[in-house]
Amino acid sequence: MEQDRFQRGLDKLKEFTSSEEVNHLIESDGLKDIAPDLRKFIVEFAYGDIYTRSGLDNKQRALVTLSSLVTQAAYTQIGTHVKRGITSGLTPEEIIESIMQLIPYIGFPRVQNALNMTKKIFEEHHVMIEEK
Amino acid sequence: MEQDRFQRGLDKLKEFTSSEEVNHLIESDGLKDIAPDLRKFIVEFAYGDIYTRSGLDNKQRALVTLSSLVTQAAYTQIGTHVKRGITSGLTPEEIIESIMQLIPYIGFPRVQNALNMTKKIFEEHHVMIEEK
Amino acid sequence: MEQDRFQRGLDKLKEFTSSEEVNHLIESDGLKDIAPDLRKFIVEFAYGDIYTRSGLDNKQRALVTLSSLVTQAAYTQIGTHVKRGITSGLTPEEIIESIMQLIPYIGFPRVQNALNMTKKIFEEHHVMIEEK
Amino acid sequence: MEQDRFQRGLDKLKEFTSSEEVNHLIESDGLKDIAPDLRKFIVEFAYGDIYTRSGLDNKQRALVTLSSLVTQAAYTQIGTHVKRGITSGLTPEEIIESIMQLIPYIGFPRVQNALNMTKKIFEEHHVMIEEK
Amino acid sequence: MEQDRFQRGLDKLKEFTSSEEVNHLIESDGLKDIAPDLRKFIVEFAYGDIYTRSGLDNKQRALVTLSSLVTQAAYTQIGTHVKRGITSGLTPEEIIESIMQLIPYIGFPRVQNALNMTKKIFEEHHVMIEEK
Amino acid sequence: MEQDRFQRGLDKLKEFTSSEEVNHLIESDGLKDIAPDLRKFIVEFAYGDIYTRSGLDNKQRALVTLSSLVTQAAYTQIGTHVKRGITSGLTPEEIIESIMQLIPYIGFPRVQNALNMTKKIFEEHHVMIEEK
Repeated sequence: MEQDRFQRGLDKLKEFTSSEEVNHLIESDGLKDIAPDLRKFIVEFAYGDIYTRSGLDNKQRALVTLSSLVTQAAYTQIGTHVKRGITSGLTPEEIIESIMQLIPYIGFPRVQNALNMTKKIFEEHHVMIEEK
Repeated sequence: MEQDRFQRGLDKLKEFTSSEEVNHLIESDGLKDIAPDLRKFIVEFAYGDIYTRSGLDNKQRALVTLSSLVTQAAYTQIGTHVKRGITSGLTPEEIIESIMQLIPYIGFPRVQNALNMTKKIFEEHHVMIEEK
Repeated sequence: MEQDRFQRGLDKLKEFTSSEEVNHLIESDGLKDIAPDLRKFIVEFAYGDIYTRSGLDNKQRALVTLSSLVTQAAYTQIGTHVKRGITSGLTPEEIIESIMQLIPYIGFPRVQNALNMTKKIFEEHHVMIEEK
Repeated sequence: MEQDRFQRGLDKLKEFTSSEEVNHLIESDGLKDIAPDLRKFIVEFAYGDIYTRSGLDNKQRALVTLSSLVTQAAYTQIGTHVKRGITSGLTPEEIIESIMQLIPYIGFPRVQNALNMTKKIFEEHHVMIEEK
Repeated sequence: MEQDRFQRGLDKLKEFTSSEEVNHLIESDGLKDIAPDLRKFIVEFAYGDIYTRSGLDNKQRALVTLSSLVTQAAYTQIGTHVKRGITSGLTPEEIIESIMQLIPYIGFPRVQNALNMTKKIFEEHHVMIEEK
Repeated sequence: MEQDRFQRGLDKLKEFTSSEEVNHLIESDGLKDIAPDLRKFIVEFAYGDIYTRSGLDNKQRALVTLSSLVTQAAYTQIGTHVKRGITSGLTPEEIIESIMQLIPYIGFPRVQNALNMTKKIFEEHHVMIEEK
């Protein structure tokens, strides 16, 4: 049953990132020596228990997650979840707009920093922004 | 032109709240004696400049906004934006799920407090949750 | 197995609060209509998966938790966890000192607010502070 | 010497609040039973060591303090420091403008909540806003 | 009229930074490919609408802004606004003292990090601290 | 008497770090040119006044401090206080577990970042984790 939660989480995670990258995440977990259970809890609980719930689709969950990370200025994780948002089906424009939408709620500094991180990820992954 | 931004913001705001309530907001602004421009900036800038942008629909903007407010523990505004989310077309279940989605990113305390505020708003406005 | 996690969490939770209060928490969960799984996740994941780990005793977990809640200004939960800290074996003095210890790290305002909440809980539960 | 720091802090504090209120603060400290040293540290360290430094005048220190409290959403302390700001020589307009100035840096929600608290304090203390 | 807001913002911004640097900011905006409106909103809204208001002078606005950025640990922006503060007329000592003033309100860690960033900016721009 | 507070703080600080490192901290204070009093206040107030209080032992103070720093995402200081925690007698496992304990209260991102910083410090200082 625990195995089920882990497997269910892994399957869900693959909807947000390539299976190649999932394997990489599990096998080369940088924290496996000091905190091997962190990765397990992320897969089992975050992806297995929470992301698999009904009520929101993957794109909505990616938007909600990104908005929280921008608000708390968690720049490493903003990078990770911009990529996962793209894989889950968000367009680059939706990602940028969701960050712009936060200006009235958190102000310019964190929005600017989040957009700089987004730009870096887009460039590394050759994400194209459509001309408007 | 300034008038245009204010009017455009007011029109957009009416997509998130009843026009009766919009009139109420403008006419009985509790801060009009000490900070009359605050309401003006919210209408002109937040609703007129930001919410009217392309790239996200109203429901997506409501989700992103609510996620940020839950993350920053702004309970008064969570109340306001739960109502606006419902008016913009979010279902009660989408609102609850977007708060539940934040457990892995902000932990239980702020999620619990946000759900308590949501419950209060749902009860005051007779919002029904469908049986699953 | 899931049942095991829930039961294990419930058993752990009883080390932090009276079994009478645990029953009360489960039966009269104020959020059971709109978010019945929140309580389940708190019991299963927070208490079942995390609090039951080795490496720290209950008193240490209560100190670490309280410090985080004071830092994030989560006053409702400070109230809950001051009570749970006492039940887990922390002395009133240890609770007050752990809040005082945070002055150099978060400043006076949140420390003062947390101590006011602590005083309220101590009075409601007739907790005595020893004369020094 | 310790006595000196306390006395120096008390003298400085009297520049931010009436001496009647200072006496009241010391004599009826609500936390004197559980944390008698909190008040002592605020007087000795915050007012005795920090506020007495050269480089900024009292009005500047009041502005800097208020800006930080609005940013961290510490509403009880915003109330206290709006009053102290007025006593230190800030005009009501300077207080309101310093909160409005934060819109681009923290967004509307915390600004709105801080202005509501400011309005309450102004009304309780019959502070008048000049017609512009 | 919109043009007016942008121009008014640009004029105000030039009171906080050299016109050479303003031109550089506008022309080589690193985010112009993915979020061209961010810079526009900062100029129009932050500088055009907010900084131009009456009630506080430029030096006061710089102090209030810096205090908020230190409180929210926005180190990139602390760098930018330390420079703008100097250009607006704040002395190096006023900048350092406004950060020291925050020790009782946010604790040592964020003050220490902000002072390290300030030191770096002072060194890059050959800002001298007067001997006391 | 002031000398006493400084000396008392220095003695206490030596219980959290090697006396060699204490000398290094005092003599090569990177901020001594622009903010010479910061180090003095940390020694006198944080270590001299707060850490020397009764009611908690050094290990408990280190746990409470680390929990607050992880919650506020102060990564530089997390590095410093992981080292001081080890010197004060905390085991590597206690440090890791106190960070893991925060998952339900702050979510995964800040826990993951804190563990990465902890791993870096452990590697630099050849701290060994016991096989379980």
